[in-house]
Amino acid sequence: MEKNTSFLSIAKDFKAIFFDSYGVLKNYRGLIDGVQNTIDFIENQGIVFRILTNDASRSQEQQAESFEKAGLRGITPEKIITSGMMAKQYLQLKIKSGKVAYLGTPNAAQYILQANLECVPISEVENHDLDTIMAMVFLDDEGFDWNYDINKTVNLIRRKNIPVIVANSDNLYPVTKTDVSIATGGIAKLVESIISKKFIHFGKPDSQMFNFAFDHINQEGTFNKDEILMVGDTLHTDILGGNKFGVKTTLVLSGNTNANDADLIIRSSGIIPDYICDSIVG
Amino acid sequence: MEKNTSFLSIAKDFKAIFFDSYGVLKNYRGLIDGVQNTIDFIENQGIVFRILTNDASRSQEQQAESFEKAGLRGITPEKIITSGMMAKQYLQLKIKSGKVAYLGTPNAAQYILQANLECVPISEVENHDLDTIMAMVFLDDEGFDWNYDINKTVNLIRRKNIPVIVANSDNLYPVTKTDVSIATGGIAKLVESIISKKFIHFGKPDSQMFNFAFDHINQEGTFNKDEILMVGDTLHTDILGGNKFGVKTTLVLSGNTNANDADLIIRSSGIIPDYICDSIVG
Amino acid sequence: MEKNTSFLSIAKDFKAIFFDSYGVLKNYRGLIDGVQNTIDFIENQGIVFRILTNDASRSQEQQAESFEKAGLRGITPEKIITSGMMAKQYLQLKIKSGKVAYLGTPNAAQYILQANLECVPISEVENHDLDTIMAMVFLDDEGFDWNYDINKTVNLIRRKNIPVIVANSDNLYPVTKTDVSIATGGIAKLVESIISKKFIHFGKPDSQMFNFAFDHINQEGTFNKDEILMVGDTLHTDILGGNKFGVKTTLVLSGNTNANDADLIIRSSGIIPDYICDSIVG
Amino acid sequence: MEKNTSFLSIAKDFKAIFFDSYGVLKNYRGLIDGVQNTIDFIENQGIVFRILTNDASRSQEQQAESFEKAGLRGITPEKIITSGMMAKQYLQLKIKSGKVAYLGTPNAAQYILQANLECVPISEVENHDLDTIMAMVFLDDEGFDWNYDINKTVNLIRRKNIPVIVANSDNLYPVTKTDVSIATGGIAKLVESIISKKFIHFGKPDSQMFNFAFDHINQEGTFNKDEILMVGDTLHTDILGGNKFGVKTTLVLSGNTNANDADLIIRSSGIIPDYICDSIVG
Repeated sequence: MEKNTSFLSIAKDFKAIFFDSYGVLKNYRGLIDGVQNTIDFIENQGIVFRILTNDASRSQEQQAESFEKAGLRGITPEKIITSGMMAKQYLQLKIKSGKVAYLGTPNAAQYILQANLECVPISEVENHDLDTIMAMVFLDDEGFDWNYDINKTVNLIRRKNIPVIVANSDNLYPVTKTDVSIATGGIAKLVESIISKKFIHFGKPDSQMFNFAFDHINQEGTFNKDEILMVGDTLHTDILGGNKFGVKTTLVLSGNTNANDADLIIRSSGIIPDYICDSIVG
Repeated sequence: MEKNTSFLSIAKDFKAIFFDSYGVLKNYRGLIDGVQNTIDFIENQGIVFRILTNDASRSQEQQAESFEKAGLRGITPEKIITSGMMAKQYLQLKIKSGKVAYLGTPNAAQYILQANLECVPISEVENHDLDTIMAMVFLDDEGFDWNYDINKTVNLIRRKNIPVIVANSDNLYPVTKTDVSIATGGIAKLVESIISKKFIHFGKPDSQMFNFAFDHINQEGTFNKDEILMVGDTLHTDILGGNKFGVKTTLVLSGNTNANDADLIIRSSGIIPDYICDSIVG
Repeated sequence: MEKNTSFLSIAKDFKAIFFDSYGVLKNYRGLIDGVQNTIDFIENQGIVFRILTNDASRSQEQQAESFEKAGLRGITPEKIITSGMMAKQYLQLKIKSGKVAYLGTPNAAQYILQANLECVPISEVENHDLDTIMAMVFLDDEGFDWNYDINKTVNLIRRKNIPVIVANSDNLYPVTKTDVSIATGGIAKLVESIISKKFIHFGKPDSQMFNFAFDHINQEGTFNKDEILMVGDTLHTDILGGNKFGVKTTLVLSGNTNANDADLIIRSSGIIPDYICDSIVG
Repeated sequence: MEKNTSFLSIAKDFKAIFFDSYGVLKNYRGLIDGVQNTIDFIENQGIVFRILTNDASRSQEQQAESFEKAGLRGITPEKIITSGMMAKQYLQLKIKSGKVAYLGTPNAAQYILQANLECVPISEVENHDLDTIMAMVFLDDEGFDWNYDINKTVNLIRRKNIPVIVANSDNLYPVTKTDVSIATGGIAKLVESIISKKFIHFGKPDSQMFNFAFDHINQEGTFNKDEILMVGDTLHTDILGGNKFGVKTTLVLSGNTNANDADLIIRSSGIIPDYICDSIVG
């Protein structure tokens, strides 16, 4: 484990880099200062990159647009890979007819469910609809009444044995320097543990997003796993997933994991990054 | 395991009976038909009884009044033992000053916190109050905004290392013949797992309520454990707790556990009641 | 939370003290230096004490004798309360006939099962015996072949739905200054999670041992909970259990929890002792 | 969910089939009767197949040879994909020097670790070696003393923060018609939960083996996910993994899941296969 190294001096030795988005490129205040320099450096070195995010609430296009609005150039939609895309692919392949109930915003639903499936917010599911509901998707932590709609979801899943998809496995996301909010994955795990069923979770640390990104860059050239670096701010998703996939990993201290706690959490979790940097800047 | 026996024919052989409340004496529709006969029979036989409930939202007096209003005679406040009383005793013994933050209704707070502690709903906790907050209590699943206030609770507990008390360990409670609602214990377990801290849970199956009831009846006479019967509708709380405490246990099928699933759940959980009855009637 | 206070200056303000045994009075090397002074001081002050231990492998008499052999005076058998006594009481009350299978040493079995039940080591259970086996007890981590006998236990419990009793909930115990060994509770949790059944666990942090000790000292005098101090080296058993029972708690740093990690583990676990002392000496 | 369909009538509509090995092609008694007919039918139809097994104890060659010895023709080494291969790839990519400690047989170690790493059975790890041990691998449930060597593993991992790899995620495997044995994954989960570290698990239901098989057959031709069928006897590995990967799934009742319990386990787990067949024969 190398610490306090300059990120650029590490990055230059790789042919491809996978970045987490939140906590790495941006945070609750917007873009991280200086991140444009890093993206430019990487592009100039001919290093290929992708952004792997557990944000399932917005499409690739919407996320690219959001980077552009914030003033970061060079993040095109096809460079962004979301856990929502994995959930979408699942639905396309496995649910061939009927309706899909969801917990989240209509925007998230529109994006994920653009397959030829009708989607219904859980609040609008009626008991006489039950026959037509073929899957339930946890999409986002907003866009619904937590008390009423989470309870309605519990009862739907108890009544009908359908696949339950979790489009974002994160438990928490930061909303200020000190405060967090419970994310979709946290809500889904509550329901999963209460009703003792097994849901289908997408997003890091699962290998599927890494594989998707790997296959994607290998359409542009030839990349071996040992030529790829995963960069993230969260040990349990970015670093665990990257390590397992067999690529080198860098923990940055600009997001979920702060400098004071990093050593301790690494020691107590047993999740060990190859490198630790303050941020991807410098 | 004896099945399909008449409850009264079992009851008559015991000197004391502990009843769960919800699913045993009443359910979502009100009193269970014929329950007055059973209470009268027990009283006439000179059998002592107590009601052990994981409902922490109302005082003994309020719960007794509710039985009376529903038309059931003979349930005096001192016969009712709630998990909230255990939480209240904890607070009195361990929190000697400061304020207690809570998630629940003001009524529940008033009842549990009538110790000389000031109580503050989580929604009204300000950051400049943090120094004065000495404990956090999960009281009830209503009386607050789930999204806003559960997230605020997560952040309070992350910021300040204080005892967190769960006054009701139940995950779910039934609201109609088929539907359930997430209870206080379910919400607390979500927060507990997300922030990896250890909360202090009160209520069945923990031994404390059984011990309290046991000590209570032994002030009226002399009761050995093998002269006591625990009656409940839920394997994981009533039956597991009663078995562990060393008393005989009866599962009734008038609440959480229905006749079709009982055998299966007993086999798969390994929680084995001594008797199974349709209800406490007949 | 008061730190670095002299134990005796805390102890003198209580009417009764509950001590954990291992890590408090003795450790892997034998008696902790100076412990006789503390016991003598307590006796001279007229403070009543009990030893609450999750060691289920030896009887009260055997444990008292072991203290005497090691040179500590004043520890009589009736001052020792073991989790094995709780398991034994359960078996006496709930298993009225048949045989009890066990995992552990014959000595542990003899002590716990001296009720009129026949006990059979799991290695000697034959398939044609299955009808007569009425319970399974996890007693100790030694006295059997781990590979053969743990697998045999898994198969017994899969075949026959009987109560499974865990006489000691500890996961680990220290064997040298740095090394630990998996304890009975750890083995039992492996089996429990693999077969998804609910076992009946005895020992701290459960309230039952605290209640037993509380009732026991109240036969000698009148003791309120706020006049009692629990002293232990382990947050998840001694301190969590003591806090929940409503007594004051002291963490000592002479066993499982060392001085360097104490603050961190308290912060990350949320289990908060009232006092922290280096040891019970001085 | 289609039930009781003939396997061959399902199989003929797919371009590729992934088979689990144990419980599908063979069981504790050897080859399942008639399995040669199914393999021949598939070959004749031009359907490509692979065997995806969580058995990490033997190489592809050894497993192919074992099928041949048992009398099944047509199973060449390159058709077999094992979770051990995933673990091996991880070690090659992430551990560049030093020694790897393992729990298992020397044969399993030789196969997985044929990278230029020195492997040491945990029983032979000395304290003065600690500096050179760079990873720990759970390979197999035999080849070591459970009591001594599992405890030694616990202490190694507590002392040194190294990656811990679990080469087979299964909890149990069947040894006779009614009896099971604890598998490597079960042992690893015990240690993982006791020391609260995060291990790196390989094998179904994780997507990695599915992706490996998918990439492998796509070197022979062009296969879309909806042209592939996964066949297995275990809901939590084969079916959950196949569903998540986006292929159609068939549960067979010739192994871990028997005909009487299948409906119930599907309902209680929420893991839903597309088809259910008695076996792959007929």
